[in-house]
Amino acid sequence: MSADSATGAAKVSRRRLLGWGGAGLALGVAATGGAAAAAIGVSDDPEPRLGDAVPFYGPHQAGIATPVQDRLHFAAFDVTTDDRDALVALLKEWTRAAARMTAGRPVGEGAVGGLPEAPPDDTGEALGLKPSRLTLTVGFGPTLFAKDGEDRFGLADRRPPALIDLPAFPGDDLDPARSGGDLCVQACADDPQVAVHAIRNLARIGFGKVSVRWSQLGFGKTSSTTPEAQTPRNLMGFKDGTRNISGTDTAALNEHVWVQPQDGPPWMVGGSYLVARRIAMNIETWDRAPLKEQEDIFGRTKGEGAPYGKKHEHDEPDLNALPADSHVRLAHPDSNGGARILRRGYSYTDGTDGLGRLDAGLFFLAYQRDIRRGFLPLQTRLARSDALNEYIRHVGSAVFAIPPGVRDAADWWGKELFA
Amino acid sequence: MSADSATGAAKVSRRRLLGWGGAGLALGVAATGGAAAAAIGVSDDPEPRLGDAVPFYGPHQAGIATPVQDRLHFAAFDVTTDDRDALVALLKEWTRAAARMTAGRPVGEGAVGGLPEAPPDDTGEALGLKPSRLTLTVGFGPTLFAKDGEDRFGLADRRPPALIDLPAFPGDDLDPARSGGDLCVQACADDPQVAVHAIRNLARIGFGKVSVRWSQLGFGKTSSTTPEAQTPRNLMGFKDGTRNISGTDTAALNEHVWVQPQDGPPWMVGGSYLVARRIAMNIETWDRAPLKEQEDIFGRTKGEGAPYGKKHEHDEPDLNALPADSHVRLAHPDSNGGARILRRGYSYTDGTDGLGRLDAGLFFLAYQRDIRRGFLPLQTRLARSDALNEYIRHVGSAVFAIPPGVRDAADWWGKELFA
Repeated sequence: MSADSATGAAKVSRRRLLGWGGAGLALGVAATGGAAAAAIGVSDDPEPRLGDAVPFYGPHQAGIATPVQDRLHFAAFDVTTDDRDALVALLKEWTRAAARMTAGRPVGEGAVGGLPEAPPDDTGEALGLKPSRLTLTVGFGPTLFAKDGEDRFGLADRRPPALIDLPAFPGDDLDPARSGGDLCVQACADDPQVAVHAIRNLARIGFGKVSVRWSQLGFGKTSSTTPEAQTPRNLMGFKDGTRNISGTDTAALNEHVWVQPQDGPPWMVGGSYLVARRIAMNIETWDRAPLKEQEDIFGRTKGEGAPYGKKHEHDEPDLNALPADSHVRLAHPDSNGGARILRRGYSYTDGTDGLGRLDAGLFFLAYQRDIRRGFLPLQTRLARSDALNEYIRHVGSAVFAIPPGVRDAADWWGKELFA
Repeated sequence: MSADSATGAAKVSRRRLLGWGGAGLALGVAATGGAAAAAIGVSDDPEPRLGDAVPFYGPHQAGIATPVQDRLHFAAFDVTTDDRDALVALLKEWTRAAARMTAGRPVGEGAVGGLPEAPPDDTGEALGLKPSRLTLTVGFGPTLFAKDGEDRFGLADRRPPALIDLPAFPGDDLDPARSGGDLCVQACADDPQVAVHAIRNLARIGFGKVSVRWSQLGFGKTSSTTPEAQTPRNLMGFKDGTRNISGTDTAALNEHVWVQPQDGPPWMVGGSYLVARRIAMNIETWDRAPLKEQEDIFGRTKGEGAPYGKKHEHDEPDLNALPADSHVRLAHPDSNGGARILRRGYSYTDGTDGLGRLDAGLFFLAYQRDIRRGFLPLQTRLARSDALNEYIRHVGSAVFAIPPGVRDAADWWGKELFA
């Protein structure tokens, strides 16, 4: 096997891919600490190899420091059983299925799996597709630890203090049907059918134990964890997330993203905390705002993305040269006691509202070592003063504890939490 | 400029792309009859070229016989003005904007366009992205010709007889808010941000004259107009559209897709008729159906996609060997007096319904020379007998007359209709 990056690898025939599944190659079982995508090759085959599987096992879950994939399918689940053993069995089964799917293999053995008289083990729509850098990242919501004062799973005393319930911020317009959740799964892949397939099969495996509370599709990576890449533009046409934490900056990751041993609790070390916010944009109003007003709001030029008074996107902004209520100034670490988060958001477009307006915006995903020192101070400031607030509305919100990575085939999501 | 295909072309820097726009190169103005993607190169640049723009001008609109792109954003519009001149002006402006955007250029001149005191000409989120084989295909719905008996634009006597109102088929469960429309624009591209950007900018240009009635995002090309490619799988996990008309089969296109001179009316010659249906799948029920039942319903094996009794996907099916109510048997041209359509549908996943079920299915798009000899007989048979009906529901429906291609920079969408 080669570990070279081969994102642009040549197409591979469906037959060859199915052959892999049948051969039962142990794809992706090598534990790696790095976040880079690794290519998978088959050395006895003369053709250039597909590749593009991200290792599933490791000290951290993939999908956080991993270079951002093109597409997202995010699902929040309610646990519908009160049976702790059933929940544990589900998490084990999910882990097994995730290890297979992220390696480009169907959930069950064989092409479609199972007997003619039984439903197939895998729903099949990803057969023949490449792994597409699929990552599956699981999180535990506050309500898993206790819901309405009821400790269904004996976890109430294990809730990490860093997993706070967010306060109501000024301007919040949250829809409970798009908020919260006992569990979450973030599926990212370069092919949306691969991401959708993964969520669907996990939901199917969980039938009778969990049900999807809400879900979100996203596209077009609005932030970048690879420092060399151009920062993608959000649906307002601006480069957004220029100062994001790089997935290769181990020092910054350890300082701002990964839970450290001294933070505790022990089952969370190597994990992180996720804040998810659905931020709707008033697209039509924005599109009628003058260019100068748009640039004043961000504190950047629209074309180049340079901070006011500078030439290039990555030039360090002179905060005093920016309008006091500009987004870049308010979100800058210097304005927030050094607080930094790893952003991994995606744009979304969910059709049209009843008035012919695009239902579109940013599905904001931010990973941090402690929500109290990451999103909380940042959003407290932005919600109060950000000039952008006139054009956006936060309509969904959720927080999750993201446990550390699955170490090997004997490990499973939540093993230490349920120990 | 080179006209070679270069879909896998190397990445190009954002700076170079913006340079193009600024240089005002007349990209994509060479009229070509073929449907293949053409690459655009700048000969005085030493680096390998980006490419992947589809020519906008030609005898047929692009986006029909064009090799299927990965992503779809489809929008149906209500015309909100009664002023024929305003509608004509809009169609001219849309045509100009479409010629620019399909060539990878912003709507206005310059990077973001316009003066600081005015809204930018282009919303900006596609700046720096490749053309991504964007095609924009416009259609005219029955209600454009007359709505509730009112002939707003003096077009009532120009409605083509082949543009029928579809009858109510057995099992139809149509939502009026997801059906109909005076105009439609089909945007297809390999990058969803490019497709969304195009629809959004057309909607913005049309502000005060049109409003989006409904829209649909799709992914994962469920049919293929390139004969050599593997047929993609639908969300039921089956290869679907194996017998689709190839975009390079001129004889079949002329017989089944393009309106011919003898068909009339003259303004439609070289055009086609589009039937759009949102077909929701009962995903969770399907996923619990036994493999044998799933295969009986399609009349194909799930793994290979071979018709019953045959070995390979593209083997000619023996219709008598298939279950009488199987999808493949009922949809076969031999069961429908030779009727064939060009399918260009996309899978969709629009989150979750209120009961935790995936809101997913097929956004069916079919082009044909005459709806009365294409979709009508086909769906009449399928709606009555197809075993698949237990697992699907048609929830949206629309038909559109697709005028011929825009010939050159002096031509515009609908010029002959409004002559």
